[in-house]
Amino acid sequence: MSKEITPRADDYSQWYIDLVRKAGLADYSAVKGCMVIKPYGFGIWENMRDQLDRMFKDTGHVNAYFPLLIPKSFLSKEAAHIEGFAKECAVVTHYRLKNSDDGTGLIVDPEAKLEEELIIRPTSETIIWSTYKEWIQSYRDLPLLINQWANVVRWEMRTRLFLRTTEFLWQEGHTAHATRDEAIEETIKMLDVYATFAEEWMALPVIKGVKTANERFPGAEDTYCIEALMQDGKALQAGTSHFLGQSFAKAFDVQFTTKEGTLEYVWASSWGVSTRLMGALVMAHSDDEGLIVPPRLASTQVVIIPIPKPLPELTEVADRIAGELRARGIRVKIDNDDQNRPGFKFAEYEKLGIPVRLGLGARDLAAGTIEVARRDTREKSSVAVDGIADYVAALLEEIQQNMLTRARAFRDEHITRVDTWEDFISVLDTKTGFVSAHWDGTPETEDLIKEETKATIRCIPLDNSQEVGVCIKSGKPSTQRVLFARAY
Amino acid sequence: MSKEITPRADDYSQWYIDLVRKAGLADYSAVKGCMVIKPYGFGIWENMRDQLDRMFKDTGHVNAYFPLLIPKSFLSKEAAHIEGFAKECAVVTHYRLKNSDDGTGLIVDPEAKLEEELIIRPTSETIIWSTYKEWIQSYRDLPLLINQWANVVRWEMRTRLFLRTTEFLWQEGHTAHATRDEAIEETIKMLDVYATFAEEWMALPVIKGVKTANERFPGAEDTYCIEALMQDGKALQAGTSHFLGQSFAKAFDVQFTTKEGTLEYVWASSWGVSTRLMGALVMAHSDDEGLIVPPRLASTQVVIIPIPKPLPELTEVADRIAGELRARGIRVKIDNDDQNRPGFKFAEYEKLGIPVRLGLGARDLAAGTIEVARRDTREKSSVAVDGIADYVAALLEEIQQNMLTRARAFRDEHITRVDTWEDFISVLDTKTGFVSAHWDGTPETEDLIKEETKATIRCIPLDNSQEVGVCIKSGKPSTQRVLFARAY
Repeated sequence: MSKEITPRADDYSQWYIDLVRKAGLADYSAVKGCMVIKPYGFGIWENMRDQLDRMFKDTGHVNAYFPLLIPKSFLSKEAAHIEGFAKECAVVTHYRLKNSDDGTGLIVDPEAKLEEELIIRPTSETIIWSTYKEWIQSYRDLPLLINQWANVVRWEMRTRLFLRTTEFLWQEGHTAHATRDEAIEETIKMLDVYATFAEEWMALPVIKGVKTANERFPGAEDTYCIEALMQDGKALQAGTSHFLGQSFAKAFDVQFTTKEGTLEYVWASSWGVSTRLMGALVMAHSDDEGLIVPPRLASTQVVIIPIPKPLPELTEVADRIAGELRARGIRVKIDNDDQNRPGFKFAEYEKLGIPVRLGLGARDLAAGTIEVARRDTREKSSVAVDGIADYVAALLEEIQQNMLTRARAFRDEHITRVDTWEDFISVLDTKTGFVSAHWDGTPETEDLIKEETKATIRCIPLDNSQEVGVCIKSGKPSTQRVLFARAY
Repeated sequence: MSKEITPRADDYSQWYIDLVRKAGLADYSAVKGCMVIKPYGFGIWENMRDQLDRMFKDTGHVNAYFPLLIPKSFLSKEAAHIEGFAKECAVVTHYRLKNSDDGTGLIVDPEAKLEEELIIRPTSETIIWSTYKEWIQSYRDLPLLINQWANVVRWEMRTRLFLRTTEFLWQEGHTAHATRDEAIEETIKMLDVYATFAEEWMALPVIKGVKTANERFPGAEDTYCIEALMQDGKALQAGTSHFLGQSFAKAFDVQFTTKEGTLEYVWASSWGVSTRLMGALVMAHSDDEGLIVPPRLASTQVVIIPIPKPLPELTEVADRIAGELRARGIRVKIDNDDQNRPGFKFAEYEKLGIPVRLGLGARDLAAGTIEVARRDTREKSSVAVDGIADYVAALLEEIQQNMLTRARAFRDEHITRVDTWEDFISVLDTKTGFVSAHWDGTPETEDLIKEETKATIRCIPLDNSQEVGVCIKSGKPSTQRVLFARAY
């Protein structure tokens, strides 16, 4: 067990923070609520970003870039949007500092006050739809399928690395369509892209669903989401895709001429995932020794360690094996450091979550074998040098699949159907995870449940089966179960 | 000549703006001084960014991410840095809006005033060096070779798309070293990376040099730069690499234990290029018909147009040829639109600067030929269908080289040696371009020349030959010529 990392059983929350900091993913910064994403963490984020970007492009989207700063008046144009975002934003009021008259330092120059304050984007619907007004005139200009990779700022009082920070990195897709159906189709298509990415790349099983009105994005007609389960039994919203109806088109007066020559408001979607996914990755898979990174996202997939140290005859073999692995597209590192002992190195790479470790010892090599350790199960085996590249390639694939299978089994075990309020409380408090229960469909009951238990409705799963029942809280009639959980 | 684009001879500045907007590179936004980078422009920027990123990684750098917001007091820690940046920055003073009491809209909540104002980063030396203090203890932590891709804000009164905008995108490398020599070596290595990128990818010849004290980055001991020449004879600084000495290490108290056990301040470099390069690309190569994009940076390198329209027998050939080109890694688009005539399409793709256009006509195909038009020279030729992929691959390479050769010839013709003040003025006013002239080495003379002519010293070229002479302005002795120009 790593001495730097608090065990999960002792303090799950501290375990998470220790891991993020000690494995070099991120750290707090000098600015309250803002984080520094460290090189190792950023490398994993780059792999996530690049794969998502490929998937967006494969589904016909292009990237663009819109301003960081939004005029205050823009936020007021969509009524629900103001309520959701105006309360927690960074406001730029001046554009200059000057030296103070008493020579003690820099002060804000009162003469450089902006006529209209600017808000650092908490999300970009308003600035983008004000631009789309210029870009969209006719049905020929539609659909507009644009994505942006950007930083956003939402003022947060209680922050946690990756999961909730004042500034975070994300992508936000903003699409414009001629019909309601096409916009809804896009909204769901991108939810599917997110779900596929989460499962196939992050090894993170997710439940696709729709949010209740209470949990909807401010300005959306419907918010779809993917919900994941962390090892402590808390849910985490991993991505959202919003059907915006015509609300932003109306707010910014974006109309188009149809084929038939009539004038109509444009239909919209928006969808996003953020560096929050890094937090989900850590909390879904890692253990008390450190991170466990899925092979497809690992910046280093295989580390080769000469044992007991980088002797010439060992590094020669290491180079050859690394060459064979690289030729198959595997990302390899050879650790030729001669300061630290193998045991120390093993612990370091376990902390970093490198999927596969190859130990090259002189005696093993003489016998034609290598020690192969896999990070997910921590199993070691002795494998023939001949054909090692094939073996490792297959093992990486197996680790990727095993991580998904393991996470899915845990998640499935933690979806519990309950029919009484007592059972509901009991599952939340002891077994944890998702609770599938009847709800009467009213925001009031939802609020009441949240107030009493801190559990929220994570989603109404897509293709939910309809069944007659009674609400666990109000006892009123219900037509379907929804998924509750305590959540990040 | 494109009707949408003002000819260069009429108004060079308007030509540039027309081109940037009409070719879909960028546009003004609702926020003063901030631009929207449109999908076509962003695609070219992505190609630039991805190639630079590969070059940074190949030279041992890793990416990370530091906060957007910088505490005001940080800017004060390095004396020269304040003077350079505090004057033009966006200041966040509050973190919340609220509904006004009279119900007329959103106002800044006076109760949500920050104790210390935050500045949107104009550059990140201060926030990064405050972080490096945590990361660097020993010589084993060095060198630290980190790059960041980010947006920055510098409040500008007069802006121009890409060339000078309040917000822009860039990369900033920030490295930390154990010795002065190593930091200088890094500074120059990255200058070389920039020069290689400019020449080999942008087809933009550059002069590598060092800035005078007047033009130095605030806080640097030396600023190195690459200077390019635009078609109107004005120079453009395309990238800078700064040797920062120990100034930021001292400002943020970043010391390390040497191998010998002594405590020393860390040595630093920083280096950056920005979306300004997009402006350089446009102004160095394009013509009155539109953009000319170098093949290596073009998001579409070849467009195939069935003539007179996409008949089935033509699109079948188009698909086959596109397949052959794609198999060679060439980025191809087939235009199967049947609304517009070929002449209209030709003009559109000339405006976008697509390097090669293939016209597929039934009669030509029957004779086994295709019409190939290259954008750089606007020459057309009839080429055999057999082996067309080889031909196009070679042509793209030739266009890339030709664009560099042409730009270099223009640049070389526009470096003029002068020895008198009269000639100096005359060259600046009529021939334009770089003027190579003796200067007495004083900031006073440099200021005077700038005041009278608007020409600045662009750089002292690296490996400048030393020669005895007299300053064109003061008549005082000089040991070398420097390059003057009017500049963007």
